[in-house]
Amino acid sequence: MTESRVIRSAAAGWTGVEPARYKQEAEGPGCFVGATRHTLLGAAPAGPGEALDFELRYFELAPGGYSSLERHAHPHAVVVIKGKGTVRIGDSVEPVGAFDVVYVAPHDVHRFSADSAEALGFLCIVDRERDRPVAVAEDAGDAER
Amino acid sequence: MTESRVIRSAAAGWTGVEPARYKQEAEGPGCFVGATRHTLLGAAPAGPGEALDFELRYFELAPGGYSSLERHAHPHAVVVIKGKGTVRIGDSVEPVGAFDVVYVAPHDVHRFSADSAEALGFLCIVDRERDRPVAVAEDAGDAER
Repeated sequence: MTESRVIRSAAAGWTGVEPARYKQEAEGPGCFVGATRHTLLGAAPAGPGEALDFELRYFELAPGGYSSLERHAHPHAVVVIKGKGTVRIGDSVEPVGAFDVVYVAPHDVHRFSADSAEALGFLCIVDRERDRPVAVAEDAGDAER
Repeated sequence: MTESRVIRSAAAGWTGVEPARYKQEAEGPGCFVGATRHTLLGAAPAGPGEALDFELRYFELAPGGYSSLERHAHPHAVVVIKGKGTVRIGDSVEPVGAFDVVYVAPHDVHRFSADSAEALGFLCIVDRERDRPVAVAEDAGDAER
């Protein structure tokens, strides 16, 4: 199979993929709760998928958890694959569930949140080379976009 | 919401996304059965996700269906989200099911197939700019890699 591979889904995550804290220190500030990250393909500097120009990550937010309210120049492509929650983009909040697709355009302030009683799991694809997110104050709202 | 958007999963597909034939004429030859494609984000020249350097597509193979046996220089990042089937990479055939991740490295001959009694649905992310697939003869096997 050369460098091609199948990374098997397991009871909790994927075989051989260690979940990480949602944010690495180097990725900047941000307030978040109950979030884990699995980098499935394209992790820099090495890992499966090294020929990809993008990273495929899986994020899971525990019930009641949420990601940082943040903005950045790189866009997000997101597919929800588990549970229910909401996405805030600018001042708009929309419910999301299994197989909904979310596009977050450059510079739009955004946050993903799990429902209070259900985890939210989603795939998120980003360019491998990308700018660092900037945390946005909770009350800044659309003025920060 | 500016250009950001939520594309809602519906009973069959996604709201506002028209399924297409798996192959457009311009994309070259290939023998395939029972395959449809939804381009969810990043479709050129226009469509949601225009700032993305990659395309997010969803392919569904009907029970017994399969994609072209093909090769190309661009890699594939695949996540199965529905059903069961197999992936052939080179001469290796592996079963795949929900949430399994498949990386197809550059130039590896590959084909996805649905089980005989169950459809197979998978997300497939590729660079927006990419080379055209080349169909591979059924009996060429690993010699064509």
